[in-house]
Amino acid sequence: MAVYGMLAKFRTEKHGRGQAVSDPIRIEADYLIETTFDPRAAAEAMAGEQSSGTFVPVPGETPELKARSAARIEALDIQDNEIPQPSLPGSANPKGLAEPIRRQARVTLSWPLENIGPSLPNLVATVAGNLFELRQFSGLRLLDMRLPTAFAQAYPGPKFGIAGTRRLAGVADLPLIGTIIKPSVGFGPEETAALTKTLCEAGIDFIKDDELQSDGPHCPFDERARAVMRVINDHADRTGKKVMYAFNLTGELDQMRHRHDLVVELGGTCIMASLNSVGIVGMVELGRFSQLPIHAHRNGWGYLSRSPVLGWSYVAWQKIWRLAGADHMHVNGLQSKFSEPDESVITSARACLTPMFADKPCITMPVFSSGQSAKQAPGTYAGLESADLIVTAGGGIMAHPDGPAAGVSGLREAWEATLAGIPLGDYAREHPALAKALEAHAA
Amino acid sequence: MAVYGMLAKFRTEKHGRGQAVSDPIRIEADYLIETTFDPRAAAEAMAGEQSSGTFVPVPGETPELKARSAARIEALDIQDNEIPQPSLPGSANPKGLAEPIRRQARVTLSWPLENIGPSLPNLVATVAGNLFELRQFSGLRLLDMRLPTAFAQAYPGPKFGIAGTRRLAGVADLPLIGTIIKPSVGFGPEETAALTKTLCEAGIDFIKDDELQSDGPHCPFDERARAVMRVINDHADRTGKKVMYAFNLTGELDQMRHRHDLVVELGGTCIMASLNSVGIVGMVELGRFSQLPIHAHRNGWGYLSRSPVLGWSYVAWQKIWRLAGADHMHVNGLQSKFSEPDESVITSARACLTPMFADKPCITMPVFSSGQSAKQAPGTYAGLESADLIVTAGGGIMAHPDGPAAGVSGLREAWEATLAGIPLGDYAREHPALAKALEAHAA
Repeated sequence: MAVYGMLAKFRTEKHGRGQAVSDPIRIEADYLIETTFDPRAAAEAMAGEQSSGTFVPVPGETPELKARSAARIEALDIQDNEIPQPSLPGSANPKGLAEPIRRQARVTLSWPLENIGPSLPNLVATVAGNLFELRQFSGLRLLDMRLPTAFAQAYPGPKFGIAGTRRLAGVADLPLIGTIIKPSVGFGPEETAALTKTLCEAGIDFIKDDELQSDGPHCPFDERARAVMRVINDHADRTGKKVMYAFNLTGELDQMRHRHDLVVELGGTCIMASLNSVGIVGMVELGRFSQLPIHAHRNGWGYLSRSPVLGWSYVAWQKIWRLAGADHMHVNGLQSKFSEPDESVITSARACLTPMFADKPCITMPVFSSGQSAKQAPGTYAGLESADLIVTAGGGIMAHPDGPAAGVSGLREAWEATLAGIPLGDYAREHPALAKALEAHAA
Repeated sequence: MAVYGMLAKFRTEKHGRGQAVSDPIRIEADYLIETTFDPRAAAEAMAGEQSSGTFVPVPGETPELKARSAARIEALDIQDNEIPQPSLPGSANPKGLAEPIRRQARVTLSWPLENIGPSLPNLVATVAGNLFELRQFSGLRLLDMRLPTAFAQAYPGPKFGIAGTRRLAGVADLPLIGTIIKPSVGFGPEETAALTKTLCEAGIDFIKDDELQSDGPHCPFDERARAVMRVINDHADRTGKKVMYAFNLTGELDQMRHRHDLVVELGGTCIMASLNSVGIVGMVELGRFSQLPIHAHRNGWGYLSRSPVLGWSYVAWQKIWRLAGADHMHVNGLQSKFSEPDESVITSARACLTPMFADKPCITMPVFSSGQSAKQAPGTYAGLESADLIVTAGGGIMAHPDGPAAGVSGLREAWEATLAGIPLGDYAREHPALAKALEAHAA
């Protein structure tokens, strides 16, 4: 946990919202490393493995070629604390050292853009390729990266972002109050549409499919989309409010194209895709052809990140998907039912709202979920310093003692109070839906 | 390291080459879990989160719906040893237990195929989605999975595999003797072609681009492919041997299509893609349109696997890519320069040669690399019990005291001896290239 705290500190320092946008000429990546080798020598091995060289200098790797293509160490910050045991297996120690000292360090490497050009698929092979397997390290985690503006020119970025999402959902200032269709799997199209009707009538802004539900035989995508959009369009005709429904179209490319076109045809306003399911090529294609906001789900994120000394920080990872076109990105939520600490959730959400490039900020709307209810509003706002977010609550809405409409109202009132600077308990005195929501989720 | 050994044991038991191919009606996945909760209750939480339910039963989750859609625990094998400290941060303990006992278990879950249909993108959201973040667990790793034959019908699988690769490379029985273009980045097209010429003349079977080299401005794909194929075609015209060159076409979909078509037009016999760069949708598309064997690179594998209690085992992961169409898959090599133990390398390679379905085995050729030379041939063959593999050696060929031709000969002779059951030292007495290779790599 000490290590996790340290990482969070790194991220927060780098990602205050007011921070100036960097515009590096070279590709830059920051790593946490853990090694018994001299940290500079170990970092040089990383730089060599991920650019011109291999483990050892090779014939043909001339000084001119190295000057043109080699990765460079830009910064190295060695931590004071000694790490008694290797955090991950498989590491080696320097030869001849009986009791080597194991330390962690933060290192920044840089690469010439010319090694790969502005290509996301080749970027990840460069900044997050073989290096995690190097025996010099018993820990290696990608903390952040900064990209030359050529990447901003090569990729679309979010087409809708905050402004486009708010416009389509008809929500001006508050967070979008949302929920997820549950049971995750098992409902057919008509049951999904019936629940959607209940939620529309409850005053919800946003509904999403569960990530486990895309096009199962019991709930085919097309039938579900038609049934749900009938309800949503009827409700919009009656009330003027078109609820945003994120249809999970995760699948092969031709399937995603077909499903997207159907949602557009039906008058839907959002699609959803699982990032680890479609991958970079799938997401770039989707980002190019989509005429709707893309709700990007990060299921599987745990295997990329849960070890604090391995894998990816969200601060680095989310940049790939924002460039590719993600309009909304999941960040868990405060006091959630998952393993992620609150500090990390806030760091991730702030990263989503931090501009990537001066001329192309690629801002994505963070999505708070898992165990969310009225009570987390003040803490979320205090951490994020913004209401540009989507909150999805399941039990927080459906299990409200006075029903889903009171659940939606209570959650919305919590945010009204928060944005007005009024303590929830005070606001609840005049707002019974909020009062009962706080009571129900007091534990 | 004890944990790693245990995992390897799991895998080996499941994946002897002679094993009967399972044909489950439901999707099955095996996991290692670590928890202080009752392991069965924790497994039930996994099953709920990944199917009909959420953390708690929800309204609408009727007995009929659960019977139709819920994931099921098929097996639970609790380990005896107590784990003193949580392997990963963020886990919770059962309420009211002051000193909970932490144990590891192997659990098998199953899902009705009807939850998702035979869809690889939705499969990974189901078997490898949110569950890694569940607070019930301080460790969770996907060890293996078995799929209904509907998946075999839905996906192409490898179009070439062992037989197609051997036919195109003109190598009947021995492993394909290969190498990688180094420096990884920095050579232009003409320098790459010049090195290819040297390697062709040295008698090599197989050459691959480095995974860091795809279409960088200093070495554009098209120019490199044209220059290299000129050399390879000239050599084939003179000698009758067409060296197989895996051109790294990793990029966006339109780029990959263009590059593939160019390689076909130039008479090339192999393309290469980085799996973690292109993702499932990209790889499925490539698998569908490719007219050439696909050399699948796993760079980034370390972040998916290096923690022994998190992420993916290769036994599970490689099945996705084989279905999508990978003809060759990287497995590191024995006594390599990476962190992976030899036992794990062999388990991975054997998995590649284990049939996935009775009518569609989807066999992919394992690629041994990193620090490979003549000396690993006997151990590799003893572990794999097959010579259906590609071995790529860098220093093992280029740094041979008598030059690259002797490097290729020495490596090939090592495999001739191994397949004939002759100790390398004996065979080396009549084969000076092998003798010098063994001497050079004796350390």
